[in-house]
Amino acid sequence: MKMVSRKVDLRSDTVTKPTDSMRAAMAIAEVDDDVLGYDPIALQLEEEMAKLTGKEAALFVPSGTMGNLISVLVHCDIRGSEVILGDNSHIHILENGGIATIGGVHPRTVKNNDDGTIDIDLIEAAIRNPKGELFFPTTRLICLENTHANSGGKCLPVEYIDEVGELTKKHGLKLHIDGARIFNASIALGVSVDRLVQTADSVSVCLSKGLGAPVGSVIVGSKSFIAKAKRVRKTLGGGMRQIGILCAAALIAIKENVPKLATDHHNAKLLASGLNQINGVKVDPKSVETNIIFFEMEEDSKISVETVCKSLEERGIFMMLDGKTRARMVLHHQISTSDVEYTLSCFQQTLSGIAAAGGN
Amino acid sequence: MKMVSRKVDLRSDTVTKPTDSMRAAMAIAEVDDDVLGYDPIALQLEEEMAKLTGKEAALFVPSGTMGNLISVLVHCDIRGSEVILGDNSHIHILENGGIATIGGVHPRTVKNNDDGTIDIDLIEAAIRNPKGELFFPTTRLICLENTHANSGGKCLPVEYIDEVGELTKKHGLKLHIDGARIFNASIALGVSVDRLVQTADSVSVCLSKGLGAPVGSVIVGSKSFIAKAKRVRKTLGGGMRQIGILCAAALIAIKENVPKLATDHHNAKLLASGLNQINGVKVDPKSVETNIIFFEMEEDSKISVETVCKSLEERGIFMMLDGKTRARMVLHHQISTSDVEYTLSCFQQTLSGIAAAGGN
Amino acid sequence: MKMVSRKVDLRSDTVTKPTDSMRAAMAIAEVDDDVLGYDPIALQLEEEMAKLTGKEAALFVPSGTMGNLISVLVHCDIRGSEVILGDNSHIHILENGGIATIGGVHPRTVKNNDDGTIDIDLIEAAIRNPKGELFFPTTRLICLENTHANSGGKCLPVEYIDEVGELTKKHGLKLHIDGARIFNASIALGVSVDRLVQTADSVSVCLSKGLGAPVGSVIVGSKSFIAKAKRVRKTLGGGMRQIGILCAAALIAIKENVPKLATDHHNAKLLASGLNQINGVKVDPKSVETNIIFFEMEEDSKISVETVCKSLEERGIFMMLDGKTRARMVLHHQISTSDVEYTLSCFQQTLSGIAAAGGN
Amino acid sequence: MKMVSRKVDLRSDTVTKPTDSMRAAMAIAEVDDDVLGYDPIALQLEEEMAKLTGKEAALFVPSGTMGNLISVLVHCDIRGSEVILGDNSHIHILENGGIATIGGVHPRTVKNNDDGTIDIDLIEAAIRNPKGELFFPTTRLICLENTHANSGGKCLPVEYIDEVGELTKKHGLKLHIDGARIFNASIALGVSVDRLVQTADSVSVCLSKGLGAPVGSVIVGSKSFIAKAKRVRKTLGGGMRQIGILCAAALIAIKENVPKLATDHHNAKLLASGLNQINGVKVDPKSVETNIIFFEMEEDSKISVETVCKSLEERGIFMMLDGKTRARMVLHHQISTSDVEYTLSCFQQTLSGIAAAGGN
Repeated sequence: MKMVSRKVDLRSDTVTKPTDSMRAAMAIAEVDDDVLGYDPIALQLEEEMAKLTGKEAALFVPSGTMGNLISVLVHCDIRGSEVILGDNSHIHILENGGIATIGGVHPRTVKNNDDGTIDIDLIEAAIRNPKGELFFPTTRLICLENTHANSGGKCLPVEYIDEVGELTKKHGLKLHIDGARIFNASIALGVSVDRLVQTADSVSVCLSKGLGAPVGSVIVGSKSFIAKAKRVRKTLGGGMRQIGILCAAALIAIKENVPKLATDHHNAKLLASGLNQINGVKVDPKSVETNIIFFEMEEDSKISVETVCKSLEERGIFMMLDGKTRARMVLHHQISTSDVEYTLSCFQQTLSGIAAAGGN
Repeated sequence: MKMVSRKVDLRSDTVTKPTDSMRAAMAIAEVDDDVLGYDPIALQLEEEMAKLTGKEAALFVPSGTMGNLISVLVHCDIRGSEVILGDNSHIHILENGGIATIGGVHPRTVKNNDDGTIDIDLIEAAIRNPKGELFFPTTRLICLENTHANSGGKCLPVEYIDEVGELTKKHGLKLHIDGARIFNASIALGVSVDRLVQTADSVSVCLSKGLGAPVGSVIVGSKSFIAKAKRVRKTLGGGMRQIGILCAAALIAIKENVPKLATDHHNAKLLASGLNQINGVKVDPKSVETNIIFFEMEEDSKISVETVCKSLEERGIFMMLDGKTRARMVLHHQISTSDVEYTLSCFQQTLSGIAAAGGN
Repeated sequence: MKMVSRKVDLRSDTVTKPTDSMRAAMAIAEVDDDVLGYDPIALQLEEEMAKLTGKEAALFVPSGTMGNLISVLVHCDIRGSEVILGDNSHIHILENGGIATIGGVHPRTVKNNDDGTIDIDLIEAAIRNPKGELFFPTTRLICLENTHANSGGKCLPVEYIDEVGELTKKHGLKLHIDGARIFNASIALGVSVDRLVQTADSVSVCLSKGLGAPVGSVIVGSKSFIAKAKRVRKTLGGGMRQIGILCAAALIAIKENVPKLATDHHNAKLLASGLNQINGVKVDPKSVETNIIFFEMEEDSKISVETVCKSLEERGIFMMLDGKTRARMVLHHQISTSDVEYTLSCFQQTLSGIAAAGGN
Repeated sequence: MKMVSRKVDLRSDTVTKPTDSMRAAMAIAEVDDDVLGYDPIALQLEEEMAKLTGKEAALFVPSGTMGNLISVLVHCDIRGSEVILGDNSHIHILENGGIATIGGVHPRTVKNNDDGTIDIDLIEAAIRNPKGELFFPTTRLICLENTHANSGGKCLPVEYIDEVGELTKKHGLKLHIDGARIFNASIALGVSVDRLVQTADSVSVCLSKGLGAPVGSVIVGSKSFIAKAKRVRKTLGGGMRQIGILCAAALIAIKENVPKLATDHHNAKLLASGLNQINGVKVDPKSVETNIIFFEMEEDSKISVETVCKSLEERGIFMMLDGKTRARMVLHHQISTSDVEYTLSCFQQTLSGIAAAGGN
């Protein structure tokens, strides 16, 4: 009989558990009704996030999906608006198509490069209809994603973002950054968050991914953006009551977990390098810039990624399948270097075991 | 200099603070990622709520507004659907028109009576287009609200709901009950919640109103309804991560606060009777069935409701203006009988003071 | 065997056939591609309609339903808009709920009086959210209907419209008039069309109802309104090519058929008076102001309206059932006074025949 | 002073004028109210188009844009639907984004090849969510376009369409073909229209492009598809009255103009070959399969396409600019071989003239 005494959950950085200091903060959090606008810790968190991102105002929302949805709906509040975004972006691929199915905003996708960027000239060529011609929707928004999840957590450089920012200004558009993991980008690039998003009109930042808070995201922007965002949040049903509980944990997360992101990135590189040395596993350590690793199996391997994942689950190691040929591992503050070593060891044993049994 | 040492917050039953036992439960709550479907306490809360309402399944959502929105969108998932609802219902009046502006569902309002009911024959006359004629949307849903907030928290009797339920079945429609305060109705009517909603296809129940949990609502219905609801929740951005924190408090709320609702109702009647005896104040104690009181000033009074509210705020008593001529007070488990007495005493003093100063 | 040599089609004034002069005009109409904006007769018709209604510009659209839909979508082009309209209006009842199901505009219905008006104070009470509060959609538009079809073609007096117009200005709203039969109102009231719609920001006028053109409606308003309307028309698929054909007929209709409307109204009164004298038929001749008659059967009659309609169809007389208890007859320029007399005579015979056979 | 006695309108095949036989047919067309479903020639046209396309039923609509919009909305009538379509397709690029902005359908674009096809494996890879997972919209429809306008009127081969048709069936999806110019494809490929669209669930066919009727398109499909389409047409405002006028011309167009398409294709090749021999003009005669030609100026030419177009307009030759570097010419039954020769001659003279004047 097998005993799994150890669990290494690499499915996502959303799976972290609140730390003791978060729980302590939640236990004593002063609260009030945030729908009525009075919750003191929500206001404190929003002020703190506005400061960190260099924006006028901020708003707590239940999720990153809602943060992006609200932002797009506010910038594209006129019927017949079009948003330009990457064809491999989280908003386009993983948020149920809500901006179109719920918001009636026309998504115009442009090819994402392997590093998460979109060529500036492709963006510019996609912009249309400033004069309101009959046949086209009117472009009102460009969306970037930093770090870019589906490309393996790559960082958009500040120069690139600035250039897109200039383009949006030149054409009278708005720039939204899906910054679910913007703190990871900041740490990896050594550039402050407020500098990274300087040219953005709005940013959504996830509190429950790398930062490790239990629930929520924050969107930031101008005061008028946030005023409109509050109404859209209410319409979607994202207005909540005594959220000081959640915001207290988020304040701790910002304070205590941001410095740990560097360790996550270090561990990710360690894990990628280790995997790279295992026969049959395909991973490019150089492509790992932050806390996300995608791996595949070598084409001549007889072992499928799905088999590897299932087999590792029996040893307490959890990853997430992404399509049929690759799987994702995400590092976070509750994965230690020892966990990485354990994972590598299990990987090695698992593959040997499967190979010995004749593959799948 | 005036010292306000006492605060009586009657704006809503959403303003309650978590109790010590809730905080204790939150502090030790085991959690996991609920978007991935694994948060154990969320699952426990959903099971408990399904049992209490006699439905197959349940889903935690960030707010009552989202609970109602999801329910309408699931029942009306085909373009060109119409919902019949009261012209004074919370969904129609106080939820930003989201079912139309976000969901494209056509609202067909029918007159709400003073007791929150809608005449059965008016509902039946409004049903249209089972055969899909060219000119009309197709009615797919009827919505009731119990207790009915804008009528002062009146309870819909079980016989009435059953009759509407039969009507929906006869016409192949669905019935959704906005049961934000269904536990108040249950206590006041002496009928169990599951019996009250027996004929409903879905119910939204607020955890943070009378029940006093910090955040959230739950929707209940069949397994297939809840499966669809999960997708809509995700689309709206209502999927959240370690919600076990919030659900732990909600479980305590259900256990400890439901019995206190009878006291809230008693205090509401006490407050209404007391106000009725104060010169110039217009309130009908007989109309107070649960925890909500609306009052106006007598037509010949020279004092406006707004002046009364402002003046009472200086004494630490908070109410909510509703339009220009009436204000709302809502009782909850953190308002004691002593608070009621204090409120009545302040009311008396305030009105005398204003009158002495010449009205407004 | 029965020979029906005569047909009297009273179902609607949309059933008219093009006259010889219309056919002649269509046969020689110079045309070009109107989507590209060059069709000369379309431009001429639009100019003529703008002049007749006293507005800056006009646009040909395929139908009255599209004219109303475009108008509402242009005035309510920001997500979260609300329109106030009569609960018995054509837009709300007979246009598939398109403003909500397609446009996401929140309809807020207010009670229509028997004469098609809505009480001014009810309209004013329904206006909300100029300051953008969290819980409500923002009222941006009021819709009137003149003549008001479901009330039997009643005319809204110019003083009433002016008063609603003032109200919209006072609150910074827009006023749209569904003027499908505005020429009927003009003739019946003896007030020019441009005066009737003086305070309106947009009007839709049907060319194929009383005016008798084969196809189309026109919307009128400011130049900027029409510029936006063109884009919405294109989005809906209402942009058409060589419409000069249709517009040529419409120009004839305006010139030749408007004067005939007085005869239609006269015939309608004649028909109503005649019906009133037939035993068992319930119709109020005084309520007939233009070209529409609704009739019911007396409550003690054993004959249903449906039976009457079916029986008259055998004699070549066509009406339209409206619900179960009433039927509609609409006069138009291809119904002569002799047709009215024939209809009354058939009515009398039919009822006697049915009664003799024992009713239904 | 320059006299332009000759006009050659190559902007689009939508610019044709009704022929004498069309005008004769329109002049005597028997008509009735098509919204009520009785127009006899509309019914005859719909029957004829159903037969030609091998489908059960057909519906006349005001435009190709509405035909495509209705088709997508019918196949994707459930909220949260996704359609896979080419990133260079007319629906995506030139129809105002209506399927998203009006219909809330999520467009998932896949790369169009130069010949208008989309790689089958790319389509298959884009299909998602048959099991209704939380994060994705559900693919319900694939759209093809034949001939493919933006690629220069290329024909999709029947084998390719069949293969896509099989794919849709395998995955339980629907296939819609934007067949605005499907008759051009049929003539060019030598394959009957009904065979070409055999695997499609719906097709929109334009009557006013190559076929040369003044107004309208037709959509075809199963009886249940058309029944639903009628309601959507009504919702959009596309229901029209005495459309027999337009349908009479369309019947002539089908009978008389289809055989002329071969001549259009011949003339297009002639024009392309001629242009190819003019110095500085870039056009690939081999790429011209039907009636559309795109041309650019050689990169080292000092003359811009815009200058060429303007200059040719002075000689009565009209083309359409498409972006900044290319222009479009479309042949149709009212462009003769002599017009082609005249155009080539003017082209030659114009370019020489501009070059002599020093370019632009």
